[in-house]
Parts: sequence; structure tokens; C-alpha cells
Amino acid sequence: MRFRDLWEEIAPIGRTDHGYLRYAWSGEDMALREWFAAQASRRGLFLEEDGNGNLFAWWGPRSGGAILTGSHFDSVPGGGGYDGPLGIVSGFLALDELRARGVRPARPIGVAAFVEEEGSRFGVACLGSRLLIGAIDPERALALRDRDGITLAEAMAGQGADPSGVRPRPDLVASIDAFVELHVEQGRALAEMGAPVGVGTDIWPHGRWRMVFTGEGNHAGTTPMDARRDPMLTYAYAVLAANKQARLLGGHATVGRVSARPNATNAVPAGVTGWLDARAADADALAGLVGAIRAKIEERAARDRVEFAMTEESTSRAVRFDAPLVESCVRAARRRLPEVPRLATAAGHDAGVLARHVPAAMLFVRNPTGVSHAPSEHATDADCAAGVSALADVLEELAAHR
Amino acid sequence: MRFRDLWEEIAPIGRTDHGYLRYAWSGEDMALREWFAAQASRRGLFLEEDGNGNLFAWWGPRSGGAILTGSHFDSVPGGGGYDGPLGIVSGFLALDELRARGVRPARPIGVAAFVEEEGSRFGVACLGSRLLIGAIDPERALALRDRDGITLAEAMAGQGADPSGVRPRPDLVASIDAFVELHVEQGRALAEMGAPVGVGTDIWPHGRWRMVFTGEGNHAGTTPMDARRDPMLTYAYAVLAANKQARLLGGHATVGRVSARPNATNAVPAGVTGWLDARAADADALAGLVGAIRAKIEERAARDRVEFAMTEESTSRAVRFDAPLVESCVRAARRRLPEVPRLATAAGHDAGVLARHVPAAMLFVRNPTGVSHAPSEHATDADCAAGVSALADVLEELAAHR
Repeated sequence: MRFRDLWEEIAPIGRTDHGYLRYAWSGEDMALREWFAAQASRRGLFLEEDGNGNLFAWWGPRSGGAILTGSHFDSVPGGGGYDGPLGIVSGFLALDELRARGVRPARPIGVAAFVEEEGSRFGVACLGSRLLIGAIDPERALALRDRDGITLAEAMAGQGADPSGVRPRPDLVASIDAFVELHVEQGRALAEMGAPVGVGTDIWPHGRWRMVFTGEGNHAGTTPMDARRDPMLTYAYAVLAANKQARLLGGHATVGRVSARPNATNAVPAGVTGWLDARAADADALAGLVGAIRAKIEERAARDRVEFAMTEESTSRAVRFDAPLVESCVRAARRRLPEVPRLATAAGHDAGVLARHVPAAMLFVRNPTGVSHAPSEHATDADCAAGVSALADVLEELAAHR
Repeated sequence: MRFRDLWEEIAPIGRTDHGYLRYAWSGEDMALREWFAAQASRRGLFLEEDGNGNLFAWWGPRSGGAILTGSHFDSVPGGGGYDGPLGIVSGFLALDELRARGVRPARPIGVAAFVEEEGSRFGVACLGSRLLIGAIDPERALALRDRDGITLAEAMAGQGADPSGVRPRPDLVASIDAFVELHVEQGRALAEMGAPVGVGTDIWPHGRWRMVFTGEGNHAGTTPMDARRDPMLTYAYAVLAANKQARLLGGHATVGRVSARPNATNAVPAGVTGWLDARAADADALAGLVGAIRAKIEERAARDRVEFAMTEESTSRAVRFDAPLVESCVRAARRRLPEVPRLATAAGHDAGVLARHVPAAMLFVRNPTGVSHAPSEHATDADCAAGVSALADVLEELAAHR
């Protein structure tokens, strides 16, 4: 089966005029999950659900020493179609390629679809893989709310899933010997090097902080400028301060989400909430960056007579992928490709979460625009096919011996 | 009937944990409109609807030379309970007081409830009074959309009102000889002067501008800081520039409403829209203020490589209330009050719209907090009762002779 043929089966799901909307446990997600089950069935794979909403399709019954690939279905709102699903589609196609080659793996090989990787619905990135390895308390996770106030437990139950099954699965984690996630690149490094596929070496530490600015709601027309306690001013300053500190200190800082209360044109707002996404090359640099941003905002909040509170919503430590596994991936991918660059990334991934317990690595597929989390994210069909073959080469090597 | 008793009949309608939500043509609005009709019926008044959603209750059938009072029911989201409804409740109570005094007016006296004064639902302030006097094209008004994409025509039809009745009513306007709107003060001038009631003399010119910032959506983790075209930065700068220019030039400027697309924590936004509310003492000062803000933003947008477009959503010219009517109001209110200050206001009102065609004036009732468009807006029962008596005195004088 050609890449494009399988790709077209899911391309329409969640597509909007402004990119994709594929929230976890939405109708779109359920359609993608049904498609996953159909792929497993079409190929005679064993379908497994881990109680947390993560799906696995096993070639050969799962047992110790399994090799896992896969990624996630969910998107950021208005995201591209490749971020996540490319790794799942490529996983199934890599199995097809191995079978076409007549490969008989010595270990079970699985394709995974992790749930709520983006954290776009419930606010915690890599929620599914965190639940799987026990990195987040199930009670806390089930109580997380989306923008409409719906909890994860309610969202699961609403789609016929059983929230009481949510739990760590050390048994499942222990049976995995290696996880290799294929993902569209979220930058132009491969494009600049002229390579269709690369191998991930590191993930920058990163996190999300909720910033709540509380002032005093009032009439926009009648309230004198110097009598105001306007939290929008402090928020605006925070946006600019985050950007400036990231430029000065060398990390990345973004405020991409905001909500104002009451959000009326003719009212000084009572409150504004903004979300800070910050990343840096190591944990100290990240702490330094976030600390510098916080200090600047606190100073300004005092001048504005606005209350300011900053809460960590999630953080991900720096990840160094398993060096022998990285080298195995590079070696295997070189069977077909002259050059397979090694890349660090500032984006979080389920591979980074699983890497705490399982040797993990990543394959990246070239993205000519370099754009990500937006509709112009792209990968050519030829590069996607090269990614599938490289993944097949990696899986063949990893599963060749027990 | 005491002020508090009538007030309590509407106080629960649209009350939330964060102030009032009484959008035009909502279920709350329909409840308030039913209450209005019941008040008219209880008092044997003639109920009239002008086709635009504005309600009138006439003591004596409407004819030329009528005297009108009243205000509006709708609130900003999270607003106070007095802004608008106080003028309607006080109108009915003033009629009661005149009847209790045995007054037999020589002219019809009406109480009005204008629709969508705040413009919180469809974006155009004083929409009902503008439609009445023909200051906005009915087709344009009917096509205005709320945040959910619902048009005014759809909202009216959804509540059983006939959108095809929307039209200017010069006949109705011509029959009004004077309009006196009673309103809670939106500032602390009366509190500082120790006066329960004042008379409005002027309204500052003011307007709303939609500011659209368009950049390039991208991944918050992987996009280098210097490769970004981040519209949130330009928006943040605009918020601070508007505030600074208003302080420098002496007007009022507020950005209280914002929306970001896709509004995701881990995405550089593709677009941000903000709304500017600006007011100044005269038209030249307002044009100068808005021009200065626009110039600053354009400069910054170019540096950010962000597209910036600014569109006027509505403007209201300066209003000078009818001088003889203002003096009549002051004289009448002094029958009972030692001091009746004259006040200008920076807030828009239906009285300002009607003033283009009809002698108009306003009574303000003291607001001890000075806060407006927020839950802590307040007026004491004693001051509200003083407002009712002052309004009764004004109406008695104005309706005494033909």
C-alpha cells in the first residue's frame, strides 16, 4: 500500500478551514481510534487498550522484549495533519514493508497511538504516556478540565470509555525493550541539510505556566486612567518580557493562549489569564529563563496594582535518548539513505516520557516549511515514504534477535 | 411601592457569580421584557413596540408633545445590575409617585426600554436607539453577528420577534418633545460632592476599533525566536501603546477584549484580534488620540513582520444636551435636593443618540464605588429613591403644560 493511499483514509477527519482540530476523546478522536482498530484487524494484529486510552496493535502477541513504534492522533487546535498521525500511519506501513520483505521478527513489534499528547484539551502534555508510566496521579488526571469545564473522566465516559480503568501499567511498560517514534520535523534543519530523515538525540526541558492577572473590572469610558487596576496592561507587559528574556538568555518563550474576563470592549477587564510556554537547552537555563520572566512581571504587577500568580501546569525534564538505540537507528537508516543527521529538538514527545523507563529514540521526517502546529506544516509523499522505509529498517534490525 | 420591592422583581434575572449577563434577545432579556409588559399592564399604560425591539409604556395614548424617560435592560458581560435597569424601574416608580401626588399631566409620559444599548452582543452600542432614529441601516443591523455567529435577524426570530419590522420610526421620534434618561453614575463625582443626584450636560465622543494582527502560526518549542512572526507581541505592544498615549494626550483608551487563534499554549498564534475603546473631550482630541495609537502600532507591526488592520466598529459624536432642558431638570430636582451638580460623562447612552433629534438630558444617581460595568457598581436604596423623586419632579414640570 502506498503512503498516500493509507494517508487519505484519515486526512479528512478533523480537517477545518484553519487546519486540524482533533481533540482527545472528541468525535474526531473516536473516528481515528476506530480507524486504528480497523488497521489492526486488516493486518491480523492484536489490539490492546491500556485502560488510559492508549492503543497498541501488536504483530505477534505482546510479551517481554517487544519493540514499539507509533505516535499520537490528537492535534493542537488549528494544527497540521502530520504532527502525530504520521508516526502511526508510518508504523502500519513499516509493518507492511517488513512483511513484503518476508521478515519474520524474533520479537513482537507494536504500533502505538498515545492519547492527548499535545495537552490541548486538558492542559497536560503527553497525558496518555504519563498515565501509562505512572508519572501523573490518575485521580488528578481524571479531574483535569477542558475549556468547557468537562473533566477527563466525563469526556471518557461520554465516549463509552471506563474512567475507572485509568492507571499506571508497569507490566506493559516492562514488556517494551525499545520505543522508536517517527515524527514530522518541527523545524528546517533537515531541509537545510538536504536529508529526508534524521534521528533524534535530545529533547530540551520545557514547561507550561498559567499566569493569572487580577485587577478591578470597571467602565472603559468613565474610569480615569490613573484610577485603573487594569490586568490587560500587566498581561501585555508579560508577553513582551517573556519574548525579550528568551532572546537575551537564549531559550524559547511564547504566550500563545489568553483569556480575558469579562472580555467586553467597553470594560476594563477584571482578570486576564495567559499561558507561558518556555524551553531551554538544559534545566538550569530553563529555570533561569522562567525566573527572569517571573521577576520582570512581578515588578510590573506591583506598579499596575494588579495581583499576579504563576502556576506550573506541566514540566518535562531534559531527555537524552538512549545512545546505543540512537546509533542503531542511524546505522539501520543508512542502509537506504546516504546521510542520516542527528538532531536535538525543543518539542516534547511521548518518546521523551517513555525514555524514563524504556530505551527510546525518534526518527524525524523532513518538513520543507519548518512550520509546525499550524496548517502549513508539511512533508512530501516521497519523504514520508523514505521515513516508512527507514522505520522498517530500524524495526527489522531491532527485532532481528531476542 | 418602595424602590426595593420593585427592584427585587428583576434582580435575580441574569445574575451570575461574576455579575450580570443580560444580552439583548437572550432568555434573560425576554424575561425582562415580559416584566416590562406586566408593569405597563399593572399600571394601565399603553404598551408599544417600535419594530426594533424598543419598548414603550405610555401614560395616556402617545401623541405629539410626549415626554419620555427610561433606559435599557441589557448589560455588559459581568456587569452591574444598575446600569440600564435603574432608569426603567425609576421611570415606573416616578409615574407611581406622580399619580400618588394627584398629578394629571397635560402631555403623555412614557417609560422606554431600549434594546442592545451596550452593544455587548452585536458590537454596535445603542443599537436600538440608532435603529429608532434611522442612524443605522436596518439591513446592516440585521446582519450583525454575535460571538457565536448568530445574526441579529436570527436572534430576533429565535425569540419570536419579526426582523422585517426593523426600521426607522420618524413618526415616533417626532412625537417626543423631551427625553430624560436616569442612570447610575459611572464615576465618583457625585460621591465626592456629597450629592445623591446630578444632571448630565455632555457626553464625550467615543468609539470602538477592531484591531486585527496577523502573523504566522508555528510551534512554540521549535521555532527560533528570530524566525517568528508572532502577532501576540504586536497586540501586547498595542495594549501598552494605547494606555500610554491616553495618559499623554488626556483621553481614555482601553483594550478589554481579545481573541487569539488558535489560542493554544504550545503554538505561536497565527492571529490575534483586540478591540480598542477610545474616548476624549472633543472630536479633535479623539482623532488625535486614535491616530497616535495607530501610528505607534503600525511602526511596531512592521518590526514584528505582522500585518495590522484597524477598523472602526462604531463611533459616537460628542453630545451637548439641550441647555434649556438641562436647566429645567436642575430646577425641578432642586425642589427636594439642596444641590444638583451638572456633570459631563465619558460613557455613551441612548440619550446621546436621541439628542440628535429630540431635546434630551440625563439624571445621574450617586455610585459610592464609582465602579461601572463590573459587579461592584452600586447605588444605595436611599439614593435610588431620591433619584425617583427627582425624576418625578422633572416629569411633573415637563408635562405640566402643552
